[in-house]
Amino acid sequence: MSYDFLYEVQDSVATITLNRPEVMNALTFEVYAQLRDLFADLRRNDGVQVVILTGAGEGFCSGGDVHKIIGELLQRDMKAHLDFTRMTGEVVHNMRMLEKPIIAALNGMTAGAGAVLALASDLRLASERARIAFLFSKVGLTGADMGAAYLLPRVVGMGRASELLYFGDTIDAATAERYGLVNRVVPHTELLSTAREWASRLAQGPTFALAMTKRLLNQEQHMDLTSALEVEAQAQALLLMGEDHRRFYEAFKAKESPRFNGR
Amino acid sequence: MSYDFLYEVQDSVATITLNRPEVMNALTFEVYAQLRDLFADLRRNDGVQVVILTGAGEGFCSGGDVHKIIGELLQRDMKAHLDFTRMTGEVVHNMRMLEKPIIAALNGMTAGAGAVLALASDLRLASERARIAFLFSKVGLTGADMGAAYLLPRVVGMGRASELLYFGDTIDAATAERYGLVNRVVPHTELLSTAREWASRLAQGPTFALAMTKRLLNQEQHMDLTSALEVEAQAQALLLMGEDHRRFYEAFKAKESPRFNGR
Amino acid sequence: MSYDFLYEVQDSVATITLNRPEVMNALTFEVYAQLRDLFADLRRNDGVQVVILTGAGEGFCSGGDVHKIIGELLQRDMKAHLDFTRMTGEVVHNMRMLEKPIIAALNGMTAGAGAVLALASDLRLASERARIAFLFSKVGLTGADMGAAYLLPRVVGMGRASELLYFGDTIDAATAERYGLVNRVVPHTELLSTAREWASRLAQGPTFALAMTKRLLNQEQHMDLTSALEVEAQAQALLLMGEDHRRFYEAFKAKESPRFNGR
Repeated sequence: MSYDFLYEVQDSVATITLNRPEVMNALTFEVYAQLRDLFADLRRNDGVQVVILTGAGEGFCSGGDVHKIIGELLQRDMKAHLDFTRMTGEVVHNMRMLEKPIIAALNGMTAGAGAVLALASDLRLASERARIAFLFSKVGLTGADMGAAYLLPRVVGMGRASELLYFGDTIDAATAERYGLVNRVVPHTELLSTAREWASRLAQGPTFALAMTKRLLNQEQHMDLTSALEVEAQAQALLLMGEDHRRFYEAFKAKESPRFNGR
Repeated sequence: MSYDFLYEVQDSVATITLNRPEVMNALTFEVYAQLRDLFADLRRNDGVQVVILTGAGEGFCSGGDVHKIIGELLQRDMKAHLDFTRMTGEVVHNMRMLEKPIIAALNGMTAGAGAVLALASDLRLASERARIAFLFSKVGLTGADMGAAYLLPRVVGMGRASELLYFGDTIDAATAERYGLVNRVVPHTELLSTAREWASRLAQGPTFALAMTKRLLNQEQHMDLTSALEVEAQAQALLLMGEDHRRFYEAFKAKESPRFNGR
Repeated sequence: MSYDFLYEVQDSVATITLNRPEVMNALTFEVYAQLRDLFADLRRNDGVQVVILTGAGEGFCSGGDVHKIIGELLQRDMKAHLDFTRMTGEVVHNMRMLEKPIIAALNGMTAGAGAVLALASDLRLASERARIAFLFSKVGLTGADMGAAYLLPRVVGMGRASELLYFGDTIDAATAERYGLVNRVVPHTELLSTAREWASRLAQGPTFALAMTKRLLNQEQHMDLTSALEVEAQAQALLLMGEDHRRFYEAFKAKESPRFNGR
């Protein structure tokens, strides 16, 4: 497979590095389509348990490319517009449906569609230099882009989500951490090593249990409590009978650390 | 139209100033009814794009007037009670359904129904002197008033919402900001100028795009992710074909700032 | 009734003290079953209006006992596993369905199922020594245990909930407060006195109004705004005609403090 971004797999951790640093890793039609397909393919790829998403150069991702997407789209017809927005939504869909943790490592400017890619990840780790802007309103568009009006209030609450989407203003990493939008801010030089450390811990964890956690975090957004309790009872009954839990118990008795295998 | 509050429109920004400062702008039956009707009318009023809600004097709003509402209601029958609570709920309904940003500028005490009016706004800007109390339990009522049990957990999370509604205690502006209940705290003398600045920015923004953002923030509370992604794909396809987005693109190419017209 | 935990009722406040301090109050099959039944029984017990849940000794609760539950379960069959996870879910169900405030007073380590018991409470008060860990992934299980994947994102947002459930790491009391996971952190020696003060205030409050608040906070998670406004209109109409609200009004006129009786 050939991608317009860097793609590397090591020790079950896939690293996607958006790689058009001259335009802050602005997205093209091709990159969207490749991300959509890659995240779908990774569901069935047992060689990858965790994904890191980051950017080359100074920025994480500045969103859709002004020339290659905006300029191009304005010459296309109605159907082509919807094809495009559905494709971008599919990237987010495939990220949320991938039952493996995705860690966004925000190395700098994270804007527009780039901010939604970060939002659709499970964990967000930010360099002190990271800045985030859901800048859709600044380009005459709705902040309800690629699921942002669904995801953002569930991460930061409705008050802050409204502000971020209405104004499209840029917030710094510390503010994003305070809002719960990023999980941790680290010195710029430690961003990738921390992301790899997190990824490595998760890849060596009970990956099937983690997959279940991600699936149920998603699905229980739309269940009542009674249904949620039953689905968790069934899920945890499965996991209690799984190999990883037994491995924990044997290790515990032997006063050792468990080695999980995701089964 | 004659209102029991001050109402002024300038540069597409309507300012509603609750104006019974001698009782901290306590609400009367008439004010509730007028707010309900005004927020409904503003949907079709193209001359107003943003609303500021604030209070005259020392307080923002102390809630329902003890004498003119509580004392009066206690002499009425069951049907009259429900007529009243439904009317107050309609104010909130019409605020959330108004697809134009509402900025609550909290100039002082914000209590009871006043706190819910603030909560039903889109953005909350607080003077350092602002204090907020969902004080329903202190008057023997349920905190589930005018949608507070729906809205508050979605803004500050269930833990803090439970505390605020159970105790009815007063929190200061800094605490409210920390909880995500207000968006920003400013010096008292800068409250109205900041609110006007925010309103002006939004009124000069892509108002149709902002309307779509508010509509979808509301509606996606009750959609699953797949439905939300489709509704956003359709919405953004529309906006991509709108005039404001084209204005952005032309301005960008000309290295100018875009002037939006809400179409 | 004889319980494997301490159970005491004073001035309408029930205090449950988990009491196996030698194993940080690890839960047994019996304790789960007793908690399930006690929380159900308390619905109809008018002598109890508020519950405090705390732990004896250094910890609040370390979760399911490794030997008495994990070791034992691993020898049982599929049906027995589901019986167990359903029972633990019923504890949470009965806590949320109990229309009386539950205050978790976190005196130390709060881990695994213990963290979910805290989460299923309405208010969380933490000693400076408290630490919280949703440690399920560390024992090879899913973080979606006893409703945690339902409850936690609604308290701290999806970003932090994902992190806490994926890693199972321990956070201190100050971090938990910052996340909105605990309502207040107090010096260790003041934990129980503060919990009793909170409980006493609530027990002397308008308990029927508080019951309605808890019921609607739960149920409105799954209503749309229009339905929520109607259910609140009906609820508040009832409360406006209740005795406690009239007691407030009479006290107000007499410039006295109201004495509520929960009717």
